[in-house]
Amino acid sequence: MTGGKRKYYTLRQIAERFGGEVVGDGGVRLQQVATLEKAGPGNIAFLANERYLPQLKTTRAAAVIVGEAARGATALPRLVCTNPYACFARVSAFLNPLAPARAGIHRTAVLGKSAELGRGVEIGAHVVIGTGARIGAGSVIGAGCFIGNGAAIGAGTRVFPNVTVYHGCLIGQRVVLHSGVVIGADGFGMAMEEGRWLKVPQIGRVVIGNDVEIGANTTVDRGAMDDTLIEDGVKLDNHIQVGHNVRIGAHTAIAACTGISGSAIIGRYCRIGGMSGIAGHVAIADHVDISAHTMITKSIHKPGTYTSLYPFETHREWRRNAAQLRHLHALAERVRALEKKLSGAERRKS
Amino acid sequence: MTGGKRKYYTLRQIAERFGGEVVGDGGVRLQQVATLEKAGPGNIAFLANERYLPQLKTTRAAAVIVGEAARGATALPRLVCTNPYACFARVSAFLNPLAPARAGIHRTAVLGKSAELGRGVEIGAHVVIGTGARIGAGSVIGAGCFIGNGAAIGAGTRVFPNVTVYHGCLIGQRVVLHSGVVIGADGFGMAMEEGRWLKVPQIGRVVIGNDVEIGANTTVDRGAMDDTLIEDGVKLDNHIQVGHNVRIGAHTAIAACTGISGSAIIGRYCRIGGMSGIAGHVAIADHVDISAHTMITKSIHKPGTYTSLYPFETHREWRRNAAQLRHLHALAERVRALEKKLSGAERRKS
Amino acid sequence: MTGGKRKYYTLRQIAERFGGEVVGDGGVRLQQVATLEKAGPGNIAFLANERYLPQLKTTRAAAVIVGEAARGATALPRLVCTNPYACFARVSAFLNPLAPARAGIHRTAVLGKSAELGRGVEIGAHVVIGTGARIGAGSVIGAGCFIGNGAAIGAGTRVFPNVTVYHGCLIGQRVVLHSGVVIGADGFGMAMEEGRWLKVPQIGRVVIGNDVEIGANTTVDRGAMDDTLIEDGVKLDNHIQVGHNVRIGAHTAIAACTGISGSAIIGRYCRIGGMSGIAGHVAIADHVDISAHTMITKSIHKPGTYTSLYPFETHREWRRNAAQLRHLHALAERVRALEKKLSGAERRKS
Repeated sequence: MTGGKRKYYTLRQIAERFGGEVVGDGGVRLQQVATLEKAGPGNIAFLANERYLPQLKTTRAAAVIVGEAARGATALPRLVCTNPYACFARVSAFLNPLAPARAGIHRTAVLGKSAELGRGVEIGAHVVIGTGARIGAGSVIGAGCFIGNGAAIGAGTRVFPNVTVYHGCLIGQRVVLHSGVVIGADGFGMAMEEGRWLKVPQIGRVVIGNDVEIGANTTVDRGAMDDTLIEDGVKLDNHIQVGHNVRIGAHTAIAACTGISGSAIIGRYCRIGGMSGIAGHVAIADHVDISAHTMITKSIHKPGTYTSLYPFETHREWRRNAAQLRHLHALAERVRALEKKLSGAERRKS
Repeated sequence: MTGGKRKYYTLRQIAERFGGEVVGDGGVRLQQVATLEKAGPGNIAFLANERYLPQLKTTRAAAVIVGEAARGATALPRLVCTNPYACFARVSAFLNPLAPARAGIHRTAVLGKSAELGRGVEIGAHVVIGTGARIGAGSVIGAGCFIGNGAAIGAGTRVFPNVTVYHGCLIGQRVVLHSGVVIGADGFGMAMEEGRWLKVPQIGRVVIGNDVEIGANTTVDRGAMDDTLIEDGVKLDNHIQVGHNVRIGAHTAIAACTGISGSAIIGRYCRIGGMSGIAGHVAIADHVDISAHTMITKSIHKPGTYTSLYPFETHREWRRNAAQLRHLHALAERVRALEKKLSGAERRKS
Repeated sequence: MTGGKRKYYTLRQIAERFGGEVVGDGGVRLQQVATLEKAGPGNIAFLANERYLPQLKTTRAAAVIVGEAARGATALPRLVCTNPYACFARVSAFLNPLAPARAGIHRTAVLGKSAELGRGVEIGAHVVIGTGARIGAGSVIGAGCFIGNGAAIGAGTRVFPNVTVYHGCLIGQRVVLHSGVVIGADGFGMAMEEGRWLKVPQIGRVVIGNDVEIGANTTVDRGAMDDTLIEDGVKLDNHIQVGHNVRIGAHTAIAACTGISGSAIIGRYCRIGGMSGIAGHVAIADHVDISAHTMITKSIHKPGTYTSLYPFETHREWRRNAAQLRHLHALAERVRALEKKLSGAERRKS
């Protein structure tokens, strides 16, 4: 995070690196990002949502990153750019560089036969690397991780402590796996025979592309026969379950606690809200947005936003309304009967 | 998965082991299972669902396993049997045998006093086995696992890396625990007193029967006073929460991300869909199926399928319809008023 | 649980320690708590809910803890008190004391430079403590835990095996973290730029107060810029996701599998049911109860109970009723049309 004295950059220096137009004093010195609310001297904040305009008026930030529309909304030194949140992300990454891998293998780590480690790899304490596993150059394997036999991890990948990667799984470059992630556990496959479940061996792998990030305690099951696939640039939050033979298209982002059942196929550039569910064998087109807490039970062929959510109420109101749900079909029938009667009455009159 | 040359078997040899009637060339040589879609030479595929009949027509598998109904649906060499998916599971397990335990204790493992290890046990790197814990013959305890004081694990059980079993818990034979599983953490029990929560000690255990499989990152809490019980043959997927004093009947299967609250009792041979919830102290009969994303708030006494799910729509349609839910009780009242009026009008006319 | 001979106490001795009025034989000897149903000689049970009155009639407990209302409902020796469940919690904690920390650092543990350990700290096998991390007096760090650089854990805290605490996070006194917990992983923050997600560095921390308990496999993400805050006395069950910059007020209790999105603010003394969800940036007042499986999509300003749940039915009934949901707006329109017609007809008549 921190340690040591932070370096300062002027707003002008930052604009030279990341683009954007400097308005006001380009010589203001900056060393860290902050929220509009908490910023102080040396901090650069950002405005990406009009909702926070009141905070822009009162912020004590030394400088701010804003879009064109807010160019005149402050007198502070500012960087005006087309995508202020992305610009902010770049500035923050510049001011908060990741610690580089500290090349070396901790003395307590256990390496299997013929495991291959790329140049500059950092292997933490109590790590276990299986037979024939490969770790790409510059990758960091955190303390307590288990990388199974024959698994492969690309260059520049960060695996935080206590992650488990089962045998044979393939993970790309510049991937981030947070603590508690489990890649390649058996999918949930079994056949019922004479009152007993028979396990169906799960012989596929998990194959993960480049630039993927996977949040804490998320699980991705290995394929039953073919592989489970997570394409480039996918971002998974915490506590997500990805079933066997799922395929998640490139640059799709999925929020926490979502469950994706086996063999579901999710398109590219989808955004899926938290606590949502995708049924097995369903296919979802590219550019589909799914609201939080929504269960998708059949395929979606068109881009758009989809929702299934019972809206919350006070418990008392909910009880009265929800009770009627059990009679909704009957209610519709009664309305139909009324309509018939009334139109019959009108016909008789005319 | 494998490495080394795979062994070949003829379809006839497979039929001799697993039953079923050979139709066509029984001499065809097979070494691995595959899906109808991806199969090639040396592969045996299966058809258990009519939905995949078109794939049966085009598959390049060397042989297929089919049911009676599909006996004539292909010209490929085939094994005709009554339960093709179960037959396939057996064939796959035969072609993909689990690596046997490699007897021995890794030099980095830490064993408590008077821990007892059965014959042929494999203890992985960085494992910790508590005082008085027992591990049954032929079991494998993967790297980084923690088995608490006095816990016991039966013979032939596989515990994948980074599993935690708390003190005193009992796990049966031929059980599979996937990575990240936590067995025996404290249940969620506390009493409110003068604005503070007092912890209620959780002094029960978790007792797990034989042939149970538990998926990655699933948690089973220890009982408050009595034990939490998981009977023989239960299959739990990933990310499931089993609260204290729950009892899950034999051969019940539960899909991922389901939450089971304290003291719920679930029958035998139930099938519970993913992301569903079972309220505390509820009892569910044998042979109950619960749909995905369904919340069971009271006991179920009869077998059958139960569902609670707001069906998904486009967000625009959902907004219009869901808004009416807040007025559903009032709507029903209005329909009742209309019915009254109209029947009054009719009575006046007659 | 225990081993060794248990010590006996008379009911009178227990009343002297914990208050309450002894009715009947105060000399009865007690050594363990039990449920009314399973209790036997030497056991003290409790009744806190009238639902279990029939069990009070048949229990074989040696003594019971009851409230005023049940004072006369049994002839057994009893402790009558105002809050029987809290009294029971205290008695159980007395009869089942936590094993004290066994001061010492396991030989396999790895300590970073300038890590500070308080007096009497127990560091388990294969633990990794980062540079500059601090562990307070009497705390226990279970086997396989990772405590990141600069993290701090207060006195008297118990961290069960295989927990991960990222760098810089602060954890209070007398906290309990169960196995699989991950504190301080990156929040889910990213900006879309030209078809690629840019990571927003997560530079805040997690700050956890005193007397907090966090269940197995729960995750609490570090803040994006400011900190994620969990105040004193909060109790989190298993499998909960706490997003970045969330703030959970003191003494709030949250049941398992709940997801709390980024920047949500939850008040004090809230009780949140299992599998519920809180949307991002929402604020919830003090003393709000949220039912299980409920999604809170906007702020709640008043205490009370709130619910959103489609009630379960047999699948057949559900299909008929849920199908009407898609036409609910239209149904309301039809009722309005009927009302208009009918009042028009009445006007014409009059």
